[in-house]
Amino acid sequence: MKLSSSIGLATALLLSAASAQTYQRLGTCPTLGCVFPPDQADFLAGQFFDIRLEVHAPVNGSEANGLLPDENFTFSIAKKGKKETLAAKYFNVAEPKLERWNFTWYEDLFARDAKTPSLVNVTAKAYRRVALFEAGEYTATLTYNNGSKTVANWLVRDLETVRKTKNVVLFIGDGMTTNMITAARLIGHKTINGKYQSKMQMDKFPVLGHQMTHSIDSFITDSANSATALYTGHKSTVNCLGVYADSSKDPFDDPKVETIAEMFHRLTGGAVGIVSTAFIADATPAALTAHTRDRSQYGAVIDSFLYGITNYTWTNWTGPDVLFGGGAEQFYSPALGGKTYQNKDWYEEFQKNGYEVHWNKTSLATAKSTDKALGIFTVSNMAKWLDRNVYTTNLNQSLSPSGDKTAALDQPGLKEMTLKAVDILHKRSGNKGFFLMSEAASIDKMMHVLDYDRALGELLELDDTIKATIAKLKDLDVLKDTLVLVTADHGHGFDVMGSVDTTYLAAQNVDRKKRDAVGTYQNSGLSQYQNTGNLTYTDSNFPSNWSPRYTLFQGLMADPDRRENWSVRKDGPRLPATPVDDTKKEYVANPNDGAGGIKLDGTLPVGDDQGVHSLTDVPVFAMGPCQELFGGVYSSIDIFFGMAECLGLARGNKSGY
Amino acid sequence: MKLSSSIGLATALLLSAASAQTYQRLGTCPTLGCVFPPDQADFLAGQFFDIRLEVHAPVNGSEANGLLPDENFTFSIAKKGKKETLAAKYFNVAEPKLERWNFTWYEDLFARDAKTPSLVNVTAKAYRRVALFEAGEYTATLTYNNGSKTVANWLVRDLETVRKTKNVVLFIGDGMTTNMITAARLIGHKTINGKYQSKMQMDKFPVLGHQMTHSIDSFITDSANSATALYTGHKSTVNCLGVYADSSKDPFDDPKVETIAEMFHRLTGGAVGIVSTAFIADATPAALTAHTRDRSQYGAVIDSFLYGITNYTWTNWTGPDVLFGGGAEQFYSPALGGKTYQNKDWYEEFQKNGYEVHWNKTSLATAKSTDKALGIFTVSNMAKWLDRNVYTTNLNQSLSPSGDKTAALDQPGLKEMTLKAVDILHKRSGNKGFFLMSEAASIDKMMHVLDYDRALGELLELDDTIKATIAKLKDLDVLKDTLVLVTADHGHGFDVMGSVDTTYLAAQNVDRKKRDAVGTYQNSGLSQYQNTGNLTYTDSNFPSNWSPRYTLFQGLMADPDRRENWSVRKDGPRLPATPVDDTKKEYVANPNDGAGGIKLDGTLPVGDDQGVHSLTDVPVFAMGPCQELFGGVYSSIDIFFGMAECLGLARGNKSGY
Repeated sequence: MKLSSSIGLATALLLSAASAQTYQRLGTCPTLGCVFPPDQADFLAGQFFDIRLEVHAPVNGSEANGLLPDENFTFSIAKKGKKETLAAKYFNVAEPKLERWNFTWYEDLFARDAKTPSLVNVTAKAYRRVALFEAGEYTATLTYNNGSKTVANWLVRDLETVRKTKNVVLFIGDGMTTNMITAARLIGHKTINGKYQSKMQMDKFPVLGHQMTHSIDSFITDSANSATALYTGHKSTVNCLGVYADSSKDPFDDPKVETIAEMFHRLTGGAVGIVSTAFIADATPAALTAHTRDRSQYGAVIDSFLYGITNYTWTNWTGPDVLFGGGAEQFYSPALGGKTYQNKDWYEEFQKNGYEVHWNKTSLATAKSTDKALGIFTVSNMAKWLDRNVYTTNLNQSLSPSGDKTAALDQPGLKEMTLKAVDILHKRSGNKGFFLMSEAASIDKMMHVLDYDRALGELLELDDTIKATIAKLKDLDVLKDTLVLVTADHGHGFDVMGSVDTTYLAAQNVDRKKRDAVGTYQNSGLSQYQNTGNLTYTDSNFPSNWSPRYTLFQGLMADPDRRENWSVRKDGPRLPATPVDDTKKEYVANPNDGAGGIKLDGTLPVGDDQGVHSLTDVPVFAMGPCQELFGGVYSSIDIFFGMAECLGLARGNKSGY
Repeated sequence: MKLSSSIGLATALLLSAASAQTYQRLGTCPTLGCVFPPDQADFLAGQFFDIRLEVHAPVNGSEANGLLPDENFTFSIAKKGKKETLAAKYFNVAEPKLERWNFTWYEDLFARDAKTPSLVNVTAKAYRRVALFEAGEYTATLTYNNGSKTVANWLVRDLETVRKTKNVVLFIGDGMTTNMITAARLIGHKTINGKYQSKMQMDKFPVLGHQMTHSIDSFITDSANSATALYTGHKSTVNCLGVYADSSKDPFDDPKVETIAEMFHRLTGGAVGIVSTAFIADATPAALTAHTRDRSQYGAVIDSFLYGITNYTWTNWTGPDVLFGGGAEQFYSPALGGKTYQNKDWYEEFQKNGYEVHWNKTSLATAKSTDKALGIFTVSNMAKWLDRNVYTTNLNQSLSPSGDKTAALDQPGLKEMTLKAVDILHKRSGNKGFFLMSEAASIDKMMHVLDYDRALGELLELDDTIKATIAKLKDLDVLKDTLVLVTADHGHGFDVMGSVDTTYLAAQNVDRKKRDAVGTYQNSGLSQYQNTGNLTYTDSNFPSNWSPRYTLFQGLMADPDRRENWSVRKDGPRLPATPVDDTKKEYVANPNDGAGGIKLDGTLPVGDDQGVHSLTDVPVFAMGPCQELFGGVYSSIDIFFGMAECLGLARGNKSGY
């Protein structure tokens, strides 16, 4: 998913560079002494991580105390019941050098309006690539300012170390909530007298859970820090990939935590696959290998996919076996307009490292299962299911992955990419097993632009992909050896309240009268997406009519200004709001969106042009070895610990490190 | 829950009397021959039900065919693989007499505006109180109009008949969704660095499921037909309690289905308890014993609680052992202003039948566990947790259950009522076991009026009640013998998207600038409901501050016109919209609600003054015997079949009938 484009790259960088959190100096550090990983952190035994310590000296603002930043702070570790030891000795590493910087932040919106930031001077240190092996409780204590203490309680979880699954397939429906699954079921599956005549594949999973997505320092999360929680077992800050956010300006020096992909690769030599319908440097795929506080460092993300982290000593990484998605602009040569890391042609770079490169569905179908594969099928995000299958003229854009400005007409869907990924991973991993992450990214992207129809199409494609993947795993006789998980990283506040008679709505001239087109309760009637129309798809559950007279009365709780006509956008994804002038600081309803609909004021700040994420717990569907670990309600980080335990990745001692 | 009050009683009666469904002649009957129970119905072996047959002869409109309604239709039953038998013979009952009526409906909103209803003449019959005993598939065939056939496929589920649980406690959070649970957790429980320091009781349940609430003839449901699905295993139409909706004018002649309370009482002699924070004749409690197409027949509902169904031969019923809730106006004498069934004093009526009557918390505490108990604690719905515990001056209203117009100051909460109910049911049921339904009704009622704070307070009270009930069952040493279920009957499209700086919002003069008070993503910050304030509640998780500076940016997807300030209403529940004139046909934002907030146009029809239900699957939490039946995703009716199977209520033959 993407943060509101109205924030823009420049602002995002400013935010992260200065850690200028409105309301919070540094969310994970309520006192003036900061320890990362902070209090309450959980660890997998043997998981690499960095430690960052900071001492803050506020110069002005409500916390100013006249002190200079402490240069003599100390940091020690103690396992419960054992003696406290200075960290350098505990980890047997050299004492790190002292670092210094400063940053500013706004205490509240009044301070922002008055342009009166608070300045903080900082002293800091970082211990790199350490690990805890023995399960149990630890205290990590920072002592600063002549005796002030910040104590972080850490827990190395006591997990079984016997590997129980050969493979893990993790499906992520980005932004997918239970509410959306319910709506997708309603348009994709037929009911008779309230009984569904077919089931979603997700509905057939034996174990259901809910995960709490609360971020480390805010209750709403984005895809970057939620992916970090799912892949590392460590919650983090919005925009963070595989790191805790410190307050320094450098987006690459933040304290890292090792990911499930990195650990699985390092400890088992198994194969890793990364598949997404987003541009492949986007947060959810990126978080498997990238470590940066700033998710918009797309070039560095591509570099990390292939070479891992090279600016610090870190875990050994030799690239995924499969990398499929969009985002060609981070691959093709700058000579063709590419925006690539170190100005390289990254197609060549991957080829040099033994990857077959694919640019379209036809080529993908011929991919050898024995070779590593890079598949990049379009500039930017991949085409949506609805545009690939129903409104196909929308594919006529200059988005060829080659960079030659022709159209990317022959794009695979999530299903084709995922099935090919399974083939390659199965073949290449042999007895070592594989880890595959497959993301339906545009559920989120289309919810952001209030394009409910396209979002639900993406969700149905995800479900169809899960169904086909399970069939494929069965064919390969590895279904019983594969933990299959389906979950999301956060929600959008979406639901369906009834139906809209679009014919009646269009026939009214006044907005207040148009609202009478809405039917609630009994007058919601039955879904017309299955009972009318003539679209058919082989062996799949998708609507037979995307524009019936009676559509869904659906929407989000929080919106920008927009116009709603509750009808499918046949000419491509919605653009609900447009800027009032070139400064792009204020948005109003797009006059070219939602034709004939009701004009509505949003509740979001007028600088927002799209919807935002929501708080709701998101569902987890589990099937296969260890499925019982994923029932009930738990934290997002428990997904990591469940997968790691099932793969037997915990290491109680240093042997083999 | 309550349908929009703007529809009102008169309209509701008109709707149900005429079965005038906009868009649908009769949703469960797409052809002109109607069978109830309709196609796809599932049955518990031995469950009583009525059969209604109708033949429709449309006089005008799109379906008019010039035919008179058939008087000679026939109806037969065939078990799969066996021969078809006329129903009267199959059930060994007399052939019912032919009935006739007519009704009108509107084909769409244009017809409604033009006042051009379609008229339908009807011939009909009803077979009363029959049952199917043998598990398996059946076809029920109506033959009419010289050979047209309507075939209903029925299934008598093949369930285990060994009783596995002594008791069932079914908690219903009316209108409660996963999104609301997430929000309640955020304000009621403290986090440190993204880790909750305490858990909701619901979060501790071992098994999680989702139930699909889709109604029989519309995809949005109300509390009446959803309670019917949960209690009978039969989906039905909005407003229906324990019946399928036929097209006749009489709201009491619709075909009935036996409820879990009725079957449990009839077959085991066990004790039944009904507890709700609503007026006790409201849909969710009512559906345990009432059988009417019109949920607003409150007087008849009270009669059914005590005497069961008496206008037709039906299952034997001698009243619940416990009946606790609000709604005194259906009990006290019409001389005091009561609106009672047959003008009786129903307190006296219950006392005559051996019930102790309680009017307040103090009296309830002294209730003998050996006696049947009626507890009615207020006129209308019970006071909300927030008003009973924080803003207590709001209790000063003329709502005494005695009818003497004093205030109902000493009201128990859901917890006190439920714990006392368990005491009585446990004592009175002996070895026979008990069935208790306990409803947190005002989660829904407060969501309807957009009073998110009160709704979340009710949800936290439900969770606190569940926690205390489990402790009580443990104390009584029957926890292991009790299936505890927590679920909902439908949703509201609610979520939380961030925080609102209410100080900043109040300081702005322009609505578009007020929107800047909203903080999303990282700027949502942390919940201030636990980190500030000084309210404390013994051994419970509720906010310590209900009006922090930074409140939740929360709301519904579909609203009436309203003004939002995202602040707790300290002077009692919200009233978001008010009528523009005495006709009450159009509502606008209430100028006295949401002081200083943002004025927002709704998306609901302007005749609506409150929010509406939503589509989303709702959660099911299960603990105890048979908990494994409630994992994964399934239909709302599966809750009934799961409870019935666990109680061993299926009867494969007629012995004992």
